[in-house]
Amino acid sequence: MATTTYTVTGMTCGHCVGSVKQEIGKIDGVTSVDVDLASGRVTVDSTGELADSAVAAAVDEAGYALG
Amino acid sequence: MATTTYTVTGMTCGHCVGSVKQEIGKIDGVTSVDVDLASGRVTVDSTGELADSAVAAAVDEAGYALG
Repeated sequence: MATTTYTVTGMTCGHCVGSVKQEIGKIDGVTSVDVDLASGRVTVDSTGELADSAVAAAVDEAGYALG
Repeated sequence: MATTTYTVTGMTCGHCVGSVKQEIGKIDGVTSVDVDLASGRVTVDSTGELADSAVAAAVDEAGYALG
């Protein structure tokens, strides 16, 4: 198990949070995604180490960027 | 045909715009909904006069408020 924290910029509302959660949640091995809208902090639990590139791609897919 | 313009407060992103469009679009007689995110102006075309209460309820359902 691994827990990794990222910062995502550009989220402004609960819909944004939902989009980011959904896209990161699709990554193989991800077991939970927690997003704090105010700070942009995204905490991801996964069964193993995640490739930063996979997380960056998921965040981009949702329409945001890693800060 | 009638065109009515409202101001909706609290929208911050394209997801918010989509929610407002979807809910107002469900009102009987509405034929088109245009939203300007920056100003919060919402322009609604409809086959007849709309009840303001119906529009207010739709906006509330989307999670926002008439300004």
